[in-house]
Amino acid sequence: MSKLTHKSSKMAGLDPGTLVHIGEASALEPVITAIAFSETYYHAKPILKVEECFTSGKGGIVRWINVDGIHQLDLIEKLGSYFHLHPLTLEDIVNTEQRPKLDDYEDYIFVVLKMFQFDDLTYQLRSEQVSLIFRPDLVISFQERMSDVFNPVRERLRNGKGKLRKQGSDYLAYGLIDAVVDHYFVVLEKLGERIEVLQEELVANPNKRTLQEIHKLKRDMIHLRRSIWPLREVLNIMLREDSPLIQEYTVLYLRDAYDHTVQVIDTIESFREMLSGMVDVYLSSMSNRMSEIVKVLTIISTIFMPLTFISSIYGMNFDWMPELKWTWGYPLVLAFMGGIAGSMLAWFHRKKWL
Amino acid sequence: MSKLTHKSSKMAGLDPGTLVHIGEASALEPVITAIAFSETYYHAKPILKVEECFTSGKGGIVRWINVDGIHQLDLIEKLGSYFHLHPLTLEDIVNTEQRPKLDDYEDYIFVVLKMFQFDDLTYQLRSEQVSLIFRPDLVISFQERMSDVFNPVRERLRNGKGKLRKQGSDYLAYGLIDAVVDHYFVVLEKLGERIEVLQEELVANPNKRTLQEIHKLKRDMIHLRRSIWPLREVLNIMLREDSPLIQEYTVLYLRDAYDHTVQVIDTIESFREMLSGMVDVYLSSMSNRMSEIVKVLTIISTIFMPLTFISSIYGMNFDWMPELKWTWGYPLVLAFMGGIAGSMLAWFHRKKWL
Amino acid sequence: MSKLTHKSSKMAGLDPGTLVHIGEASALEPVITAIAFSETYYHAKPILKVEECFTSGKGGIVRWINVDGIHQLDLIEKLGSYFHLHPLTLEDIVNTEQRPKLDDYEDYIFVVLKMFQFDDLTYQLRSEQVSLIFRPDLVISFQERMSDVFNPVRERLRNGKGKLRKQGSDYLAYGLIDAVVDHYFVVLEKLGERIEVLQEELVANPNKRTLQEIHKLKRDMIHLRRSIWPLREVLNIMLREDSPLIQEYTVLYLRDAYDHTVQVIDTIESFREMLSGMVDVYLSSMSNRMSEIVKVLTIISTIFMPLTFISSIYGMNFDWMPELKWTWGYPLVLAFMGGIAGSMLAWFHRKKWL
Amino acid sequence: MSKLTHKSSKMAGLDPGTLVHIGEASALEPVITAIAFSETYYHAKPILKVEECFTSGKGGIVRWINVDGIHQLDLIEKLGSYFHLHPLTLEDIVNTEQRPKLDDYEDYIFVVLKMFQFDDLTYQLRSEQVSLIFRPDLVISFQERMSDVFNPVRERLRNGKGKLRKQGSDYLAYGLIDAVVDHYFVVLEKLGERIEVLQEELVANPNKRTLQEIHKLKRDMIHLRRSIWPLREVLNIMLREDSPLIQEYTVLYLRDAYDHTVQVIDTIESFREMLSGMVDVYLSSMSNRMSEIVKVLTIISTIFMPLTFISSIYGMNFDWMPELKWTWGYPLVLAFMGGIAGSMLAWFHRKKWL
Amino acid sequence: MSKLTHKSSKMAGLDPGTLVHIGEASALEPVITAIAFSETYYHAKPILKVEECFTSGKGGIVRWINVDGIHQLDLIEKLGSYFHLHPLTLEDIVNTEQRPKLDDYEDYIFVVLKMFQFDDLTYQLRSEQVSLIFRPDLVISFQERMSDVFNPVRERLRNGKGKLRKQGSDYLAYGLIDAVVDHYFVVLEKLGERIEVLQEELVANPNKRTLQEIHKLKRDMIHLRRSIWPLREVLNIMLREDSPLIQEYTVLYLRDAYDHTVQVIDTIESFREMLSGMVDVYLSSMSNRMSEIVKVLTIISTIFMPLTFISSIYGMNFDWMPELKWTWGYPLVLAFMGGIAGSMLAWFHRKKWL
Repeated sequence: MSKLTHKSSKMAGLDPGTLVHIGEASALEPVITAIAFSETYYHAKPILKVEECFTSGKGGIVRWINVDGIHQLDLIEKLGSYFHLHPLTLEDIVNTEQRPKLDDYEDYIFVVLKMFQFDDLTYQLRSEQVSLIFRPDLVISFQERMSDVFNPVRERLRNGKGKLRKQGSDYLAYGLIDAVVDHYFVVLEKLGERIEVLQEELVANPNKRTLQEIHKLKRDMIHLRRSIWPLREVLNIMLREDSPLIQEYTVLYLRDAYDHTVQVIDTIESFREMLSGMVDVYLSSMSNRMSEIVKVLTIISTIFMPLTFISSIYGMNFDWMPELKWTWGYPLVLAFMGGIAGSMLAWFHRKKWL
Repeated sequence: MSKLTHKSSKMAGLDPGTLVHIGEASALEPVITAIAFSETYYHAKPILKVEECFTSGKGGIVRWINVDGIHQLDLIEKLGSYFHLHPLTLEDIVNTEQRPKLDDYEDYIFVVLKMFQFDDLTYQLRSEQVSLIFRPDLVISFQERMSDVFNPVRERLRNGKGKLRKQGSDYLAYGLIDAVVDHYFVVLEKLGERIEVLQEELVANPNKRTLQEIHKLKRDMIHLRRSIWPLREVLNIMLREDSPLIQEYTVLYLRDAYDHTVQVIDTIESFREMLSGMVDVYLSSMSNRMSEIVKVLTIISTIFMPLTFISSIYGMNFDWMPELKWTWGYPLVLAFMGGIAGSMLAWFHRKKWL
Repeated sequence: MSKLTHKSSKMAGLDPGTLVHIGEASALEPVITAIAFSETYYHAKPILKVEECFTSGKGGIVRWINVDGIHQLDLIEKLGSYFHLHPLTLEDIVNTEQRPKLDDYEDYIFVVLKMFQFDDLTYQLRSEQVSLIFRPDLVISFQERMSDVFNPVRERLRNGKGKLRKQGSDYLAYGLIDAVVDHYFVVLEKLGERIEVLQEELVANPNKRTLQEIHKLKRDMIHLRRSIWPLREVLNIMLREDSPLIQEYTVLYLRDAYDHTVQVIDTIESFREMLSGMVDVYLSSMSNRMSEIVKVLTIISTIFMPLTFISSIYGMNFDWMPELKWTWGYPLVLAFMGGIAGSMLAWFHRKKWL
Repeated sequence: MSKLTHKSSKMAGLDPGTLVHIGEASALEPVITAIAFSETYYHAKPILKVEECFTSGKGGIVRWINVDGIHQLDLIEKLGSYFHLHPLTLEDIVNTEQRPKLDDYEDYIFVVLKMFQFDDLTYQLRSEQVSLIFRPDLVISFQERMSDVFNPVRERLRNGKGKLRKQGSDYLAYGLIDAVVDHYFVVLEKLGERIEVLQEELVANPNKRTLQEIHKLKRDMIHLRRSIWPLREVLNIMLREDSPLIQEYTVLYLRDAYDHTVQVIDTIESFREMLSGMVDVYLSSMSNRMSEIVKVLTIISTIFMPLTFISSIYGMNFDWMPELKWTWGYPLVLAFMGGIAGSMLAWFHRKKWL
Repeated sequence: MSKLTHKSSKMAGLDPGTLVHIGEASALEPVITAIAFSETYYHAKPILKVEECFTSGKGGIVRWINVDGIHQLDLIEKLGSYFHLHPLTLEDIVNTEQRPKLDDYEDYIFVVLKMFQFDDLTYQLRSEQVSLIFRPDLVISFQERMSDVFNPVRERLRNGKGKLRKQGSDYLAYGLIDAVVDHYFVVLEKLGERIEVLQEELVANPNKRTLQEIHKLKRDMIHLRRSIWPLREVLNIMLREDSPLIQEYTVLYLRDAYDHTVQVIDTIESFREMLSGMVDVYLSSMSNRMSEIVKVLTIISTIFMPLTFISSIYGMNFDWMPELKWTWGYPLVLAFMGGIAGSMLAWFHRKKWL
């Protein structure tokens, strides 16, 4: 099955808004956690049934429902009807092939973005889709798998430090987006280290596998750019849009996240250009090695062909070959051969082939 | 005949609006089917004569006329005059070299798009032009050949499930466009599988044919992009345009189709970059193989040239060659040769040529 | 003389508006024909003196003056003063290095476009500049040489079939532009056939000349794109511009011509990408051939070097070489040699070099 | 010293508006000439002191001060204070690293553009900065060196032919810009001829020097494009800007100059693509030559290795080698060898290696 | 640790606005200097405690606080609270991975830009982040390390020459930006000289290290472009923005700085294209050298293989080989061999291989 398009063809022909899970199947049960907080109040609990979610955010209380695991369609549907989400929103949440985007459904804003993990051992880049929904008193976040990217946000909420508890749902949504964007730097740093390892390998001992690794990283870069580039546009829309759901206070911070995203894209572009340069270096080192091999061949041939020719002359069986009778014939020929070999070597030395 | 421009030169010099069928000729009779439906009503019938088409859509009844086969120009002309279509619309329907586009003729909207089939056996990508016309109570769709891409839409209409029966002609038109776009994912999945097969072939046993296949796929990608890119613009116009023919309800769904189209284009771009990378890998594997061949040549020459030289020395016929008289001369020379060969092999081993 | 810039340097230092013919000189006398027509009236005549042109278009009569040959500057000047054309218009008509453009001189619109011919025998692409001037009752067209591209338009005018006779000068101007654009398809079809011939040659017997032909076609594509790309802009201006010289009726048809132009540019881009792919295929087939040659060399050397070494051993003149005395020595050595050659061939076979 | 950035670092740290001459030093004294003219009046004189410049342009008299040589900073400063020019204008005049640009200082317009000379003998492309200042009754032009590019303008002014004497300072400024743009065609023609010479050399006898020349021309093209591209923008601003300094009459002519500039840029782009194609052809001809060399090696080895092997067999000293006793042994072996050589040649011939 | 992304991952998960120093650690104590000046007044002093900064700018006095060293976060925080700076401003000051940008915080404008140093000995390009804050009576500048780029500005302030003392804080901020931009020319000149050295090396003695150096410079160019390109946008915003913090007088000078930045970017692009060309030249010189080596091999083989074959013929031991009995056999064979060698050499000479 093609990795790049897996299972999106399952949707073909279905009624739009029909939920189809597109992504890796998971045997794990989805985990839902709910946090309700205000500047002075904090309460967190695991949710086993959808109905247990806090009913309504009164008195400035903001609720954050986090769902880890999107493969149980009935759960997603229940959440959708409980929180009055549009069927297309649900369809997008469970289709992990989405590009990052922002859809403004008037009573809530729906944001899709991509999270990445780079495995240090297998050098695999894994992507995961994160969906966010926010309205004045509620943020719902969906992840494909459990991860620790949102932990610092939870920590800050619990401690009551920082600005999270003092601001509304839009600032929490910003906080989650910011956590994802900050995590891009972690991934890029690992990728950068991997590139440096390959760069050293390229100088020390370039081989076929090196090239394959470089091409793999190039594909990873294409994948990253494809997934992060649209996020820039999403944040730009959030910055410019005059939505009552986004307070002016948050806009400054969104501009900061926008700047970070542009920085990430810049770094990806730099990495791509470096990888292209590395392909060039690989090819030229291959051609250098070839040149080296041919040089050895040429040196050997150039030295031994004339020598073998000379010795084959004195292996001829002519009756009249006076040199053969000379006492000093043999040593003289050997000396002559030595002279030829020596001058050849000198010539190679002057040509810098040796 | 050039595949890329076939027969469009037939039009040269004709009065604009003159119908000329440009595309593959077909011996099959065109098939027309008509469906009339409302939320509570459903009637489908095959049409043998144009006049049999449902006369008028009264009481919220929407008619959908589907035409499979556009090569009988008189039929197209009759349909055109029956439904009062502009001559340029008819000219565009029968000219299958159109780019996807949207023309707003005020009393109806005319949309051209491309459908694709990828043949698993011959690895041929076939394209087909689909034309859609819709006005408040009527949708007319034209296909070059019969295909099963619209079947799920028909099915949903008959079942009365989903939203199709409840909404107007614009939603039906959206449904047909959505069916075509969904089918792109099917084609892309097959192409992705083909790319993966070639990628494995590239590692295992790259040959001339592999390169030809890669280039063929690259051409297919160019063709796909050329045909799908403008669809993005078409959907964008439908989204933005303030036409009375498109209800607000449908706009949300069109945005969804727009997102899918962008996703398709993204995937095509990724495939193109992967194929370019595969050409690089092919070329470097060719050069590796060459290097391998030359290495064998060099190793053989480097070992046997000195050896042959030594034996040719003792084949010389000088009268005075004392070594020839020694009892141990022959074994000593053989041992010396063995030593040379051994040290050569050791050197090659250290150089990692072996 | 450089083909790409021929003679435009002749203009350097002259007063702007001074007529300088830039293009191929021609010994032929320019030919002027005039047609006056309305829905019910048609009269065509050759013009020998400028004054013979129909004086004024009364009663809905539209005049079309066609000039084949622009190298007689005094004739162009006479026409210019007779029809009150701006000096810069005349300068542009006789300078065949113009890019396609539209200049709105308020009382008339001046359009420059390019026509192409592809010679099937010499595979030469020839371009020709066509200039059009139209005001409400008059169209003047200038061609560099006589050609049959406008013949279908003349034919339709004479027959009175189609819409040409019923509409004004703007529709006639559109008709002429459409004839030129339609002719692009004819040229592209021929170029496409040429590309296919080269593609087959590339598979069957690639040689230096093939590469030169591909590069020539690439240059032709650059030339075509350079000449047709601006036409897209010209038609776009005509579509959007709210000029009283262009009636609303014609706008729909101009949109059609615009679509065709975009289609032409698309095809040119596809051809360019195909030609680039063909250069890749050529280079890789060259490298394949080289690889083939080196393989033969390596096989021959690898088989005969060890064999020659063995026979040279038994050509040594040591007194004590017991094998030489054996009765079966010679056949044994021959058999041993055969064994080596055989195992080499087997090894090559396993390596797929044979 | 780097040619591309020469001496601009001299400016680092200076107060903006401080005059620093950046460009080639010149030992020649700057030459100033002044022309005062109206439709009926013409007076030209050389200027030795700045104060001698015509004091004021009364009665429709337009003054044109031309300065050849900008390396005497005190002279430029004197001119600046005499004509009330802004310090930044003066700084730009003497810094020859400027990009073409237009600065509107309200009471005058300041235009910088680039002039080129191509030396036919050394194939060097030299650029020179031309600065123009114009206000209603005054045009001041600055050149780095004396050149004859403005001579046709002077000639037309003296003769009183053409429109120059009848129009104001803006038309004179246009005339000077037009002279510079027209001169681009002269330079492009020479470059085009050079390209054609190299193209022929590439077919007849490609060598290392050819490649260097192609790269030099490519660099020249980059330089030209870098210098002419912004001029397009300058002319566009002049066309669109609603400045009282530019009369409507002149706008039509500026549009003409704009068209010419676009044509120049088009030609530069074509030349660049041609040069890129030539590099491809060079590389493939190099690889062809290599292939040729290796082919000779392979043919020689393939013919002589088997032959030498056979003769070495009959050079073995086995006691029992019956062929050696045959009377026809020697001729038979020679014939056999001839047969092998012949069939090898036949095989090469069939493979088209010969 | 990856150079391109060093330590930005430290920020992941922190509350936005938390100060994290990202950049090279430094053991040096930050140095703060303060200058207060008006047209008639000048006072400079080193600052040891933040509270010593001049309290308020009364009577047209402008204060400039310059901070060299940003790694002591408590110092930055103290400055921030003393001058009422937004937490995000402080976060950006200490994060040296910023792209150049302008943030308008209404009561002050915050500008980030990049400064470069090119080390002549190690050929290392070092970048440093410069942050500027200005409000009507105050400019604060932050540098990573002490450098002498701002010295000329200090000098001009002390001397009271030039316009700096007469204008407000916006002109001082412009002056600092201009000093940074002027310094780009110094760096580009050094890079240009390095490129010329490599160009000569490429002609004289191209080797692996040359290619590595070229790729290093290419990476430097990417880095430079990435850091300077956004500055163009920053200056454009300052030019267009109708902020009360930027006086009209300064706008003209900002336009000048904008022009210089565009010039810098142009030069960087030229350098990039030159370096790409140099890679081509390197590869073709490598392939030339390979060709040279193979040519030597072919010449040697082509001469000695036939000769060795001939001598091996007369080394055969056939009983009946009449030539062996001839008195002149040996000299004749030698002469024949000489003839073959001579004609081979002549053939090579004609082929221009020698």
